[in-house]
Amino acid sequence: MELLEICKQAQEVKQQIAALSTSQKNDALFAVADHFMAQRESLIAANAIDLENGRNNRMPEGLLDRLLLSEERIMQMAEGLRQVAALEDPIGEVLSMKRRPNGLMIGQKRVPLGVIGIIYESRPNVTADAFGLCFKTGNTVILRGGRDAIHSNQAIVSCIREALDAQGLPGEAISLITDTSHETAREFMHMNGYVDVLIPRGGAGLIRTVVENATIPVIETGTGNCHIYVDESADLDMALAIIFNAKTQRIGVCNACESLLIHESLLERLIPALEGRLREKNVEICADEAIRKAGGDQTTIVFATEEDWGREYLDYRISAKSVASVEEAIAHINRYNTGHSEAIITDSYANAEKFLNEVDAAAVYVNASTRFTDGFEFGFGAEIGISTQKLHARGPMGLEALTSTKYIIYGNGQIRP
Amino acid sequence: MELLEICKQAQEVKQQIAALSTSQKNDALFAVADHFMAQRESLIAANAIDLENGRNNRMPEGLLDRLLLSEERIMQMAEGLRQVAALEDPIGEVLSMKRRPNGLMIGQKRVPLGVIGIIYESRPNVTADAFGLCFKTGNTVILRGGRDAIHSNQAIVSCIREALDAQGLPGEAISLITDTSHETAREFMHMNGYVDVLIPRGGAGLIRTVVENATIPVIETGTGNCHIYVDESADLDMALAIIFNAKTQRIGVCNACESLLIHESLLERLIPALEGRLREKNVEICADEAIRKAGGDQTTIVFATEEDWGREYLDYRISAKSVASVEEAIAHINRYNTGHSEAIITDSYANAEKFLNEVDAAAVYVNASTRFTDGFEFGFGAEIGISTQKLHARGPMGLEALTSTKYIIYGNGQIRP
Repeated sequence: MELLEICKQAQEVKQQIAALSTSQKNDALFAVADHFMAQRESLIAANAIDLENGRNNRMPEGLLDRLLLSEERIMQMAEGLRQVAALEDPIGEVLSMKRRPNGLMIGQKRVPLGVIGIIYESRPNVTADAFGLCFKTGNTVILRGGRDAIHSNQAIVSCIREALDAQGLPGEAISLITDTSHETAREFMHMNGYVDVLIPRGGAGLIRTVVENATIPVIETGTGNCHIYVDESADLDMALAIIFNAKTQRIGVCNACESLLIHESLLERLIPALEGRLREKNVEICADEAIRKAGGDQTTIVFATEEDWGREYLDYRISAKSVASVEEAIAHINRYNTGHSEAIITDSYANAEKFLNEVDAAAVYVNASTRFTDGFEFGFGAEIGISTQKLHARGPMGLEALTSTKYIIYGNGQIRP
Repeated sequence: MELLEICKQAQEVKQQIAALSTSQKNDALFAVADHFMAQRESLIAANAIDLENGRNNRMPEGLLDRLLLSEERIMQMAEGLRQVAALEDPIGEVLSMKRRPNGLMIGQKRVPLGVIGIIYESRPNVTADAFGLCFKTGNTVILRGGRDAIHSNQAIVSCIREALDAQGLPGEAISLITDTSHETAREFMHMNGYVDVLIPRGGAGLIRTVVENATIPVIETGTGNCHIYVDESADLDMALAIIFNAKTQRIGVCNACESLLIHESLLERLIPALEGRLREKNVEICADEAIRKAGGDQTTIVFATEEDWGREYLDYRISAKSVASVEEAIAHINRYNTGHSEAIITDSYANAEKFLNEVDAAAVYVNASTRFTDGFEFGFGAEIGISTQKLHARGPMGLEALTSTKYIIYGNGQIRP
């Protein structure tokens, strides 16, 4: 189907979707979850085509794994929808209602955004996740997934539409753009008037393309060049544990630590232990001269280049730099970070407060791992992505990030003097 | 100065501006206000050059009036800054702080956006207003005003910088792009990494250009094709008073009423009275056949074309259409409106609630004039514009719309399992 036709259909049903009651939405989410389980064999069969195409195109093993829909993963998709159903519905809440001197009652009510466009890459479970979060918040969603997962995505969307239809709801609550050409993706980014917001989910290249090309408002979800600064007063055991966790607990994620800043007074005590600890996971350290020297004669630490300070490795590698003060650490972070997650390890009240106040990022930590920047860990019960921009939503985005507000005003004949 | 240099300077001072205490900011706002008054003669002299150029370029009287800086207007600019100083400072407020099961304390703190770009047209008082609101919220501002007001804007910005300098604060808290070419404006719209958000203030053409070209996040402030629907159960005197107010109290503004929807059962009783009332201000009514007929033999009502339903006249003209139901009125509004302000006049509880729920706009009224959509009327004490988009801010934007948040997390060694 043509892109414009898809957008028009989404427009036509959006008011109906926005007006659904919480129980209608929850019932539908449970029905879709059940239908995923009932249709798991056909989902797996569709996925098998994508996997075979992937193998024929010599897709790397890591990507093939992301693409795979096993019975267990389908169960997780279904479970994800049930969890979203269990969350509180933010729609309809009136955030405040105040009486003005002229008697007008002015309140701010939470409403759906309308039509949400999501552009993403290979993982087909995003199709189900994105639907669940958008639908729960009364939004209609148009998905543009990757070419590699097209058969899986089509099967998932069909499955969702069948379940909605059985509930007497319009299947157009979710649409998939099946033409995966770049031209159509760009056209999609210019569908002002049809699509209210665009959320890219994927690597840095995808996000940059959307930010640079879209005329629709975008929520930028982000890459993370996350730092940990070990302050002069840090508990070194705590520092080692947090660094090890933030770097190695999961390496391919945006809240993993990519760069260390270490107070120069700690180098001799900290670096040999750090090197030993990170060697357990074969983490390569790219460091400045002072840190390399502190590693001793047998060190495996390599020299960093200027480029390393700005890199998001997403790999078993970390950059490390010595600094003379918390001020130098903050300045370095504000220069090289991507506005994601930054941590200080310290026992100094003044330096902790300074770091929290002055570091410019979505999440700033004292004495904890950067890996906590996540909608579930923050207690939102869901996550559509992590925003690294400052407008609308910043940091992990739960259901509320998929809502807007409107002012509702109750009068009794007021006119403006 | 080159655009890039201006942006770099703004980046350099933004942390210092963001860190100012409320009293430092308020003192500076008062100092700028005093300095405006002290320098009023040089401001008026600079403005005279713009006025003379305007006259030589045959600028229409209305625009010349918008451009004029009289002693009274300078006093108003100064008073505006003092009023902003008196408002509560939203920066630093922690919106919530909750303890997670693992002991992490996670709070959301209100912070400045950073560097705000404002692109606007001829009125020089916007220069002072925008500075006041951005500065109060700890933001650094880069202004790109219209060519017609360049001498006035330069004088105002110099005046602000002198006053900041006398307070020991960096003048770069405000910058003016003096190269008013379209090329530089477009370059400005692509200053990602230097400018955090762009706010266009002006006519529909300017706003469209910014929305279509900017890669920086934009807050779209908007045009208003505002409707009033007179429901079957309306008090007709109230309807007449509200329509007269919303159309004629001030015609050139975005919250003025541009289109009427009238329940068909009311035509004979309402239209002759409406025609008489609007004739007091020589308002032309462009209507469908049923309404024109209800005007009688001597009516001056003209026929509307399809185009009229979508027009923002900003003039002594209004479109009018008869509808058979509240549903038809809502459907018409959702098709033709610009998402600004819409009103129903009714005595029906069910129709009032239906209208409030289903009309898609920033502000939806029952029994009141659309002219109230305004930051001051809403009690915000200030207004940077009225957002017609759904992201970040919707409706009148006060100081909070110029802020973002960041998560601050207090731990004691937590790592992610």
